[in-house]
Amino acid sequence: MDRRQMLQEASDFILQNDDFLLITHVQPDGDALGSTLGFAHLLQALGKRYAIAVEEPIPAKFRFLPMSDRIQLASQISRRFSKIVALDCGDIKRFGRCAEFLEPQADILNIDHHKTNDCFGRANLVDLEAAATSQIVFNLASFMGTEIGRDMSVCLYTGILTDTGGFRYGNTTVEVHTIAAELLRNGVSPYDVADRVLETLTWSQLQLIREGLKSLQKDELGKVAWMVVERDLLDRLGAGDEDAEGLVSYARNVQGVEVGILFREKADGTVKASLRSKYHVDVGEIALSLGGGGHARAAGCTLAGPVDKAVAEVLLKVRESLPS
Amino acid sequence: MDRRQMLQEASDFILQNDDFLLITHVQPDGDALGSTLGFAHLLQALGKRYAIAVEEPIPAKFRFLPMSDRIQLASQISRRFSKIVALDCGDIKRFGRCAEFLEPQADILNIDHHKTNDCFGRANLVDLEAAATSQIVFNLASFMGTEIGRDMSVCLYTGILTDTGGFRYGNTTVEVHTIAAELLRNGVSPYDVADRVLETLTWSQLQLIREGLKSLQKDELGKVAWMVVERDLLDRLGAGDEDAEGLVSYARNVQGVEVGILFREKADGTVKASLRSKYHVDVGEIALSLGGGGHARAAGCTLAGPVDKAVAEVLLKVRESLPS
Repeated sequence: MDRRQMLQEASDFILQNDDFLLITHVQPDGDALGSTLGFAHLLQALGKRYAIAVEEPIPAKFRFLPMSDRIQLASQISRRFSKIVALDCGDIKRFGRCAEFLEPQADILNIDHHKTNDCFGRANLVDLEAAATSQIVFNLASFMGTEIGRDMSVCLYTGILTDTGGFRYGNTTVEVHTIAAELLRNGVSPYDVADRVLETLTWSQLQLIREGLKSLQKDELGKVAWMVVERDLLDRLGAGDEDAEGLVSYARNVQGVEVGILFREKADGTVKASLRSKYHVDVGEIALSLGGGGHARAAGCTLAGPVDKAVAEVLLKVRESLPS
Repeated sequence: MDRRQMLQEASDFILQNDDFLLITHVQPDGDALGSTLGFAHLLQALGKRYAIAVEEPIPAKFRFLPMSDRIQLASQISRRFSKIVALDCGDIKRFGRCAEFLEPQADILNIDHHKTNDCFGRANLVDLEAAATSQIVFNLASFMGTEIGRDMSVCLYTGILTDTGGFRYGNTTVEVHTIAAELLRNGVSPYDVADRVLETLTWSQLQLIREGLKSLQKDELGKVAWMVVERDLLDRLGAGDEDAEGLVSYARNVQGVEVGILFREKADGTVKASLRSKYHVDVGEIALSLGGGGHARAAGCTLAGPVDKAVAEVLLKVRESLPS
């Protein structure tokens, strides 16, 4: 099915139905929330009824997103829905607890850009060329001729900004910049958004960078670099798991390195490995083989502890994947 | 004079002359080099003769720029020029030693975007709205109808990328993204450029981040944060002055902070202060009052040592500038 047909199908799904439940993936990032709230603005403009459910409270840095106060926790949802819109979810497992709110035969509109998307919806608007699901929502709103106001633009811009790593990743295309120009024209202040979602660091995060860098190591060829954040450190600094997220970029950005990894000990003793690569290694494949998932340049998986064992297990897989 | 008249004047200057010396500011950054080399590609396309002079070797991370091998050190230039093109220079003092290569009555084409530019040229293409001098060179090439190939696009993209802080600063406009889209269409790989000029960190830089963060402090209101890098530390890590440059962003990015400052002890005992602000404080004014200069959100100055005295001096000025 070509792009135009998919857009038509999604448009029909929206126009012919009402009372939607909007769902995105667990531990939502900027694109998950940006695309979901951007889509909510689209429904708002069309006068449709909807609810938005997430499993856990959204990160503080995304609470500036217009209409983020419309997001409900799973615990606040008291009924089931027959019309579901899933945004930025590669598969139904990524719904987490929110899957409970689907009626047995619920119809799903699946809007996503992950290459692992298995087209689980009755209607599927899956565009693997898109840098962000927010970009797809922009194209859908344009296709439907809906006005994209400032608030909706802020949401979509946030999703595009975060999923392109601030217009830096290889997925940053001519279309991405053309849409960004359009969103700025609609009133987005790029500085405000970047400052909130990409630049600002809490005091805990800064201490974590300083302490985390002490663990930075390279392999003998200088192609793999990794850092380890043990539970003790997080507890000592009063830092949360989300504070450690950005650390992986320090490993990835070491001059000459192809794969950067952050190992983070979780409260339950398991170890979260976040993998990033530069040019050659498909870390999505590596993560998938270890029970996780993601994209070719950014992926993650969770392993059994202790940390040393998890590090050895991942490094072995990564070394096998390095081009010789 | 409006934009169109200035473009016409610059175009005339180029078309009616030959044998140019291209000069940019001392300690050239991404936009200084990107705009200068982008302009060199323009002259190349027009079949004009030119030389490019810089005072000192350019930073290693910019040596991938196409035609950067055409750049000569001041020590390699053996004659004077009567036709000068100054790129990204706010005033003639910024030429440094390269000023020696101007004939007494040399004609200067002044292409720049600094608000402190005093229009020192015979022809002045000064656009204070432009985020980068590279953006002005793009507009000039478009105005002249010159084809902007891949190599020229890489240079101009680099300048725009660095002077907008990766499309994050407030100077990132609709025009900036529209031009970025055009440069990508011309063949720029955004990932390659961002990786080289924004992301990659040397091992020394990573150690410097770790050690530098130990000195991070906030004032009692949490509005000003600063770091100090003493000479000892640079010597111990085998780090150069340029390795310390990015550190100021850690001070600036502390949650709640308005002004971030990096104090760096130079080899001669003086202290370089780099200032960054978020929303309200014009650090360009502060730097100017201390004998330096720059933009409202990014500026710098050099003070007499010792470090403690320089810190106190700058903090006093900054506190006076904070909105109450």
